[in-house]
Amino acid sequence: MTRIDAMDIAAALERLRRKAPLVQNITNYVVMEGTANALLAIGAAPAMVHAAEEVEDFVAISSALVINIGTLSPGWVAGMKLAIHAAHARGVRWVLDPVGVGATRYRSAVAAELVALKPAVIRANASEIMALAGAASGPTRGVDATDGTDAALAPAKQLARASGAVVAMTGAVDYATDGTRVVSFANGSPLMARVTGMGCAATALVGAFLGSGLEPFEAAAAAIGCLGVAGEIAAEGAAGPGSFHPALLDALASLDETVLAARLKHG
Amino acid sequence: MTRIDAMDIAAALERLRRKAPLVQNITNYVVMEGTANALLAIGAAPAMVHAAEEVEDFVAISSALVINIGTLSPGWVAGMKLAIHAAHARGVRWVLDPVGVGATRYRSAVAAELVALKPAVIRANASEIMALAGAASGPTRGVDATDGTDAALAPAKQLARASGAVVAMTGAVDYATDGTRVVSFANGSPLMARVTGMGCAATALVGAFLGSGLEPFEAAAAAIGCLGVAGEIAAEGAAGPGSFHPALLDALASLDETVLAARLKHG
Amino acid sequence: MTRIDAMDIAAALERLRRKAPLVQNITNYVVMEGTANALLAIGAAPAMVHAAEEVEDFVAISSALVINIGTLSPGWVAGMKLAIHAAHARGVRWVLDPVGVGATRYRSAVAAELVALKPAVIRANASEIMALAGAASGPTRGVDATDGTDAALAPAKQLARASGAVVAMTGAVDYATDGTRVVSFANGSPLMARVTGMGCAATALVGAFLGSGLEPFEAAAAAIGCLGVAGEIAAEGAAGPGSFHPALLDALASLDETVLAARLKHG
Repeated sequence: MTRIDAMDIAAALERLRRKAPLVQNITNYVVMEGTANALLAIGAAPAMVHAAEEVEDFVAISSALVINIGTLSPGWVAGMKLAIHAAHARGVRWVLDPVGVGATRYRSAVAAELVALKPAVIRANASEIMALAGAASGPTRGVDATDGTDAALAPAKQLARASGAVVAMTGAVDYATDGTRVVSFANGSPLMARVTGMGCAATALVGAFLGSGLEPFEAAAAAIGCLGVAGEIAAEGAAGPGSFHPALLDALASLDETVLAARLKHG
Repeated sequence: MTRIDAMDIAAALERLRRKAPLVQNITNYVVMEGTANALLAIGAAPAMVHAAEEVEDFVAISSALVINIGTLSPGWVAGMKLAIHAAHARGVRWVLDPVGVGATRYRSAVAAELVALKPAVIRANASEIMALAGAASGPTRGVDATDGTDAALAPAKQLARASGAVVAMTGAVDYATDGTRVVSFANGSPLMARVTGMGCAATALVGAFLGSGLEPFEAAAAAIGCLGVAGEIAAEGAAGPGSFHPALLDALASLDETVLAARLKHG
Repeated sequence: MTRIDAMDIAAALERLRRKAPLVQNITNYVVMEGTANALLAIGAAPAMVHAAEEVEDFVAISSALVINIGTLSPGWVAGMKLAIHAAHARGVRWVLDPVGVGATRYRSAVAAELVALKPAVIRANASEIMALAGAASGPTRGVDATDGTDAALAPAKQLARASGAVVAMTGAVDYATDGTRVVSFANGSPLMARVTGMGCAATALVGAFLGSGLEPFEAAAAAIGCLGVAGEIAAEGAAGPGSFHPALLDALASLDETVLAARLKHG
């Protein structure tokens, strides 16, 4: 188990806030507002640009790229590929969220194509990782994880080795692995599964840390660490999933070294 | 007046939460996040998939289908029709939200086409129902109900008989009718008209109850009963429309037999 | 400095609430829900219709039109142009939000085309106004203002004179100018830059005041005045950007003559 501790993440967070990296997202319609707000809360600058006419120009001025297939369609996938190629050409790192891979043949085919385009990080739930790693026992249910993260750690490491990407797997325990090293955190709250877009927010935060200059493994660890701690804080004051969501954004905005040192639990 | 009481709805809610049905939505951009959160809050699992390339595969693994024309366009209507045909082929029931029917010729034509494809339930406001039933006195104003629900009960019953769908009509009083039976509830709050997507949430909750195995009339009644009670609770603690919305999600998540028995008012 | 005081804005707000104008928006995916909720909170009736098949019909029943290029694509730009031509034909005034102009060539070309179609008001941040006025020193960062509003007042006046539109510029101080007259307010809060869609909400509120019958300069002033005061109130009770957003909607809904008179600060 690799040690990435609260001080490492706090330092990364401070660098992120100093740089306020521009993070370009091609993501799904459901979570766009929540994703932008999560990026703003942590200290990054979000943008959502998808048209083939401008994605390449926009990636050129961005610090990181987030690709999320939640509400994919052929026109948007074309924009994603243009953006990814521009990102590689410019040295801009990108993170993939293969939402619902395994649920339909089209979605699985697109996710496989995108994995082959070399994301720096893949952020997914256990069911999605098992589908991507070819370890799934049946169709997934879209965004809904039906497998636990512990059973999926071996497939996650295998996916990381096969793809060359760091894999960030979120669930009751959150993991980041490059196929060899593993870091895991056990913060968070069951309320995070009762609000849409928490996984997508984790992915966007990986983008923010990549954009601030962190290496993929460290960026993935920092993102899941921060979101887990913020989720835990937010849940303590929430009366349910509705009040939880604004409280989570408040918690992300107020995260600092003291809070992380007091809260971050290795899994 | 048919009797569906708090105990019936509480039992239906418990079954819904046990099953956590996957509810597939092709809905409008404005309310996607709020709709997903309403479904999660009540205990269902939402998905939003619209591309022709995968809607049929996705409906095949879903328990119910929600079709909402709020921000319609020809490409999305094509996806809706594929999804509806797949739903009928698989025995998956679907609910229609004809947002803004009557406001433009295109919208009215699409709504009429969709009604002809045999939804199990149509959920709409009074103005939309009068437009669908051919009883409208002038153009509607999009999502904005300009007619009261009491004047629209006769058109609602007529629409139910003509279409074969149960009609759920929301407003100051909420009704469900299959053309013969009528159930009505008088919960809710004027604040529900000050937040976007409350009608769309009602429609999605109908989908959740259909997906849990309820018959259309009972599903429509349970959905409007639950949303009305949750709205009434949320309004009591809200300082305005902004704080009302998260409070509504909290209230949906905490609804149970005790709350329903204490609150549900027949209209 | 032109005097538009709290009593003028309070009277305009009362007229707006009496009329509840239908405001048609072709806007970006990220802010649709928040924009609709801001319009509802202030007392207007929002609609979001974009398809070429119906935008003209819909504009014909609307009181104002809002055009926002945040997530633009060719199909949506075509809908925007149809809507704008219908608006001019019907005497419906429209407001332009040139989100991120300057960030990409496509975006700048589309924004220039739309400015040439004679909006009544252009609402933007300082960086966007400098890009539109040809005064930019480098590429903008999408929605993220990198220039202060004071440095941009001369370009704003120049843009107003060149385009014939009133220019509303939001930032630490908010300005409205028709190229000769200037009004400015110094309310608001730094938290407004930590939540997505605040600029887009300002634009939509300009639409609401245009739709209530106000002239463009007065509509722009009323919108920035109301949003600034509401933002200031919301920030006082907020624990961060998450709780700020619902509090802002609550504050918009409860704005009145007393609050405006006590709070509105000329800049």
